[in-house]
Amino acid sequence: MKKIDLSISTLFPAFKWLKTYQISSFKSDLIAAFIVLAMLVPQGMAYAMLAGLPPVMGIYASILPMIVYAFTGSSTTLSIGPVAIISMMVFATLNPLFPVGSQQYIEAAYLLTIMVGVISLVLGLLRFGFLIQLISHPVIQSFIIASALLIALGQLKFLLDIPLQSNNIPEFISSLVKHIQELSLISLIFSCAAILILVLLPKFVHSVFLARIIPLIVVISSIIIVAIFDLEQNSLKTVGTIPSGLPHFYFPSWGSELAFKLLPNAFMIAMISFVESLAIAQATALQKRDDLNSSQELIALGFANIAASINNGFAVSGSLSRTVVNSDAGAKTPISGILSSLTMILVCLYFTGIFETLPLTVLAATILVSIWKLITIAPFIETWKYSKADGFAMLITFLGVTFIDISTGLIIGIGLTFIMLLWRVSRPHIAVIGLIEGTQHFRNVSRYDVITVPTIASFRIDENLSFLNAHVLKGYVITELSQNAEIRHVIINCSSISNIDLSALEMLEELNKELARLNIKLHLSEVKSPVMDRLRKSKLVDELTGEIFLSHYQAVQSISPIEKN
Amino acid sequence: MKKIDLSISTLFPAFKWLKTYQISSFKSDLIAAFIVLAMLVPQGMAYAMLAGLPPVMGIYASILPMIVYAFTGSSTTLSIGPVAIISMMVFATLNPLFPVGSQQYIEAAYLLTIMVGVISLVLGLLRFGFLIQLISHPVIQSFIIASALLIALGQLKFLLDIPLQSNNIPEFISSLVKHIQELSLISLIFSCAAILILVLLPKFVHSVFLARIIPLIVVISSIIIVAIFDLEQNSLKTVGTIPSGLPHFYFPSWGSELAFKLLPNAFMIAMISFVESLAIAQATALQKRDDLNSSQELIALGFANIAASINNGFAVSGSLSRTVVNSDAGAKTPISGILSSLTMILVCLYFTGIFETLPLTVLAATILVSIWKLITIAPFIETWKYSKADGFAMLITFLGVTFIDISTGLIIGIGLTFIMLLWRVSRPHIAVIGLIEGTQHFRNVSRYDVITVPTIASFRIDENLSFLNAHVLKGYVITELSQNAEIRHVIINCSSISNIDLSALEMLEELNKELARLNIKLHLSEVKSPVMDRLRKSKLVDELTGEIFLSHYQAVQSISPIEKN
Repeated sequence: MKKIDLSISTLFPAFKWLKTYQISSFKSDLIAAFIVLAMLVPQGMAYAMLAGLPPVMGIYASILPMIVYAFTGSSTTLSIGPVAIISMMVFATLNPLFPVGSQQYIEAAYLLTIMVGVISLVLGLLRFGFLIQLISHPVIQSFIIASALLIALGQLKFLLDIPLQSNNIPEFISSLVKHIQELSLISLIFSCAAILILVLLPKFVHSVFLARIIPLIVVISSIIIVAIFDLEQNSLKTVGTIPSGLPHFYFPSWGSELAFKLLPNAFMIAMISFVESLAIAQATALQKRDDLNSSQELIALGFANIAASINNGFAVSGSLSRTVVNSDAGAKTPISGILSSLTMILVCLYFTGIFETLPLTVLAATILVSIWKLITIAPFIETWKYSKADGFAMLITFLGVTFIDISTGLIIGIGLTFIMLLWRVSRPHIAVIGLIEGTQHFRNVSRYDVITVPTIASFRIDENLSFLNAHVLKGYVITELSQNAEIRHVIINCSSISNIDLSALEMLEELNKELARLNIKLHLSEVKSPVMDRLRKSKLVDELTGEIFLSHYQAVQSISPIEKN
Repeated sequence: MKKIDLSISTLFPAFKWLKTYQISSFKSDLIAAFIVLAMLVPQGMAYAMLAGLPPVMGIYASILPMIVYAFTGSSTTLSIGPVAIISMMVFATLNPLFPVGSQQYIEAAYLLTIMVGVISLVLGLLRFGFLIQLISHPVIQSFIIASALLIALGQLKFLLDIPLQSNNIPEFISSLVKHIQELSLISLIFSCAAILILVLLPKFVHSVFLARIIPLIVVISSIIIVAIFDLEQNSLKTVGTIPSGLPHFYFPSWGSELAFKLLPNAFMIAMISFVESLAIAQATALQKRDDLNSSQELIALGFANIAASINNGFAVSGSLSRTVVNSDAGAKTPISGILSSLTMILVCLYFTGIFETLPLTVLAATILVSIWKLITIAPFIETWKYSKADGFAMLITFLGVTFIDISTGLIIGIGLTFIMLLWRVSRPHIAVIGLIEGTQHFRNVSRYDVITVPTIASFRIDENLSFLNAHVLKGYVITELSQNAEIRHVIINCSSISNIDLSALEMLEELNKELARLNIKLHLSEVKSPVMDRLRKSKLVDELTGEIFLSHYQAVQSISPIEKN
């Protein structure tokens, strides 16, 4: 059991790089900071909108959490802030509870965020980073693709300016059919123009820097066009009043009934935030040789979300697009993240007014274009080719997310992988084995040309023995015996068994007794030390009619030597 | 995939023994039938009462189900009818829904019973007999002990004649504290007398036959005493009016909302009924050399419960006490069961009047005495000694059943065993291995005195590789390498791996790449055929920096031969 380590250097890995920070790194960090900022402004507002929250909350969520992460996280380039999938999960959690955009909705978002933070922090302090293993790669992959699809569909609400539901596909289709005739032509024109520019322009721009700031250029241009043509009068929906000034420190009000309702989703958001951030951090850590620690990342995400909650933001995580940009732009240390956050404060103080006439269609277009790349069926096909079981888990997760909702789909996917694992354990591979001529190795008689002795039946079970599969082994042995009257010895090769539970031990005791009645001896071979320790505690060792051998070869040789040809 | 077999000889195993029935068996069958009948009358009424149903339903449930089982079941001695634990589960299911004893309660009991029957029948026809594996022995054992305790406590309601709740222990204690002062003295006297006689008398009776019918003698005596002293006037509660005549054929009314509510418990009752019956049938099958078939038993239990439902009975299962008596008394074929059912018809027609003045305290005493033997802590201690995990599962199941309720406790117990199994899979045993001198065998370096080569690190993971444990292996390898700068080759011994999922494969690909960057080659040894088939479908085989060897010995020899001393 590991101890909970609360020393300062553990909780704040920043002390390591702060001590050795060189002024030469500052220039690279500053340049990276500005490029990230240019992405962060439109992304922050767009993702807040995706979460059903006022766009300014996306700006707020980009300040303090990033600074907090810089001091507590172990990755040097991870960019923390609003991200699409987490925002979507926030929306899916709160949408059924309160009217979108109401004060209650916003309050609940603060509460949800602090819960995500506290859950991450506690799991991190308890060194529960291993929880990430509970979710298999195919399920995560499918979850991200399905969520991206829902997010993309959700943008049509703004692109067409009609009230669409997008918690799942059936809801989406029925609301689309109902409202399609109400679509706003001016929104449609703006949408198409923005999407075309966002998709096509990067193909003509060869500077990586320019390509990165295209969304910001589109945003600014659209604001100018709206002003010139006075389009706000023509019912084009815009971001609207943004309070200028810094976010307030504010501790969310705590309703225990509401908190209880939010708990399962807060847990799922914390897990997904963790899975996403760690995957992104790992991808860049290989290049930077960062010393990542999964539990430390949980702690840092915990602090970042608590910071988001008490500073008028909402749930944050590591952003793939911004982290890649930050890293590519030459960020050397987390100072880069701190610099982009500090610049964001200037935006808050002096430039929020600019964004008040930004059309919502343009923000939606930036989300749609950035998320569209994630939607692909290639991973489904590749996974299906390798393993039907993993492919099936992907498919069910996808259907669960798109036809029920984002959290339920994920839970179904995770549950299914557990059930399939138990199913596999309950259907162990059992082989009758024989000797490969000229060696001491035994292999499956149905796959290899091997030597067997008529009076001996050798079995190997390729799974730990437990209540789930003990019956299967017994049934297999008895069926084999009923077809071969000559057999006087059964040897069970235990080389794949490293654990044996009480139910399985009782099965072996029963099998031993039943075979004894038929005058057949039961032997064991290649019993691993931990299993042997277990057997010694039981009656089986005393009652066993046969012997326990170190190797299967020894067992067969001592019972009935195989003649050497 | 097995086909669903609907041929007559499969659905009705009775054809086998009917063809060869000898008249000499008839005498043994008849004697056994009468002894079982003497137990069945008081037990049937008592268990119906336990289920919150009119006692006569216990008599009805002892007629048709037994006859139906005789023709469809594969055990020759199993006695089918009302049993304590199933009755308790019926009570726990219906008690929260309707007032005990109301017409709605009785109707719901019919519906529940037909659902149990249909579930069993369908699972049996689908050959889902393997479902029995889902419940581990320790959980079943603990479930039975805990249920027996609740049943015993539940009898105090009748023994003291006060309104006690016994769905769980806290409820029981609070209602006992509240009502203890209302206890009826005359009930207490009757209870103590009946319990003393039932416990002590068998110690003085040396005839097995007489010992078996003591409950019937106590029942009859109590009826006579009530009549002589006119105790019914003195507020001693008795069975009350029993309609004479045969049960009616009646198809339960089907409410889909109610059916939906009953479904989870109907499933649990079907499973427990199956587990219990099969365990009892197996115990006697060994002696009788019956050819038991678990799916066939499910089918037979399905028919028996459907028969119980449409013939005014309630959920039935195999009774341990009556099966043992039936077998000991010399029953040769299921004709014994048919005979006791036919005699029960005579009881229905002519003798129900006798039981109307039977005191409820006496019925409760017979239940208490028969169930008391099951309540023991020895299995908990024995299991705990063998395995802390199994012992923990027993304890939690016990606490779940006694502190929440009978079905929830069982579900918690089953769920916990699954979680523990997944936990174990996620914490695989990994060993660094070395060569045992003079052999070709490799064993754990920390347990055996083995030879190792400084440039080679050999690992063995004792578990199938999946998303749950792939990270652990990678972490283990990397930690080991970071402590030994000399290592140039990593060999993973795959002898315990018989399955590898996509997440684990991706981990191996990553590990291969990361080791390549450090100029360390990754080799695999003793890869089983099904795993090799999997690897061939992936990129790993092409990208692997090292080789795949048939045996670990070959691997080490070909990389850096160990000198023979």
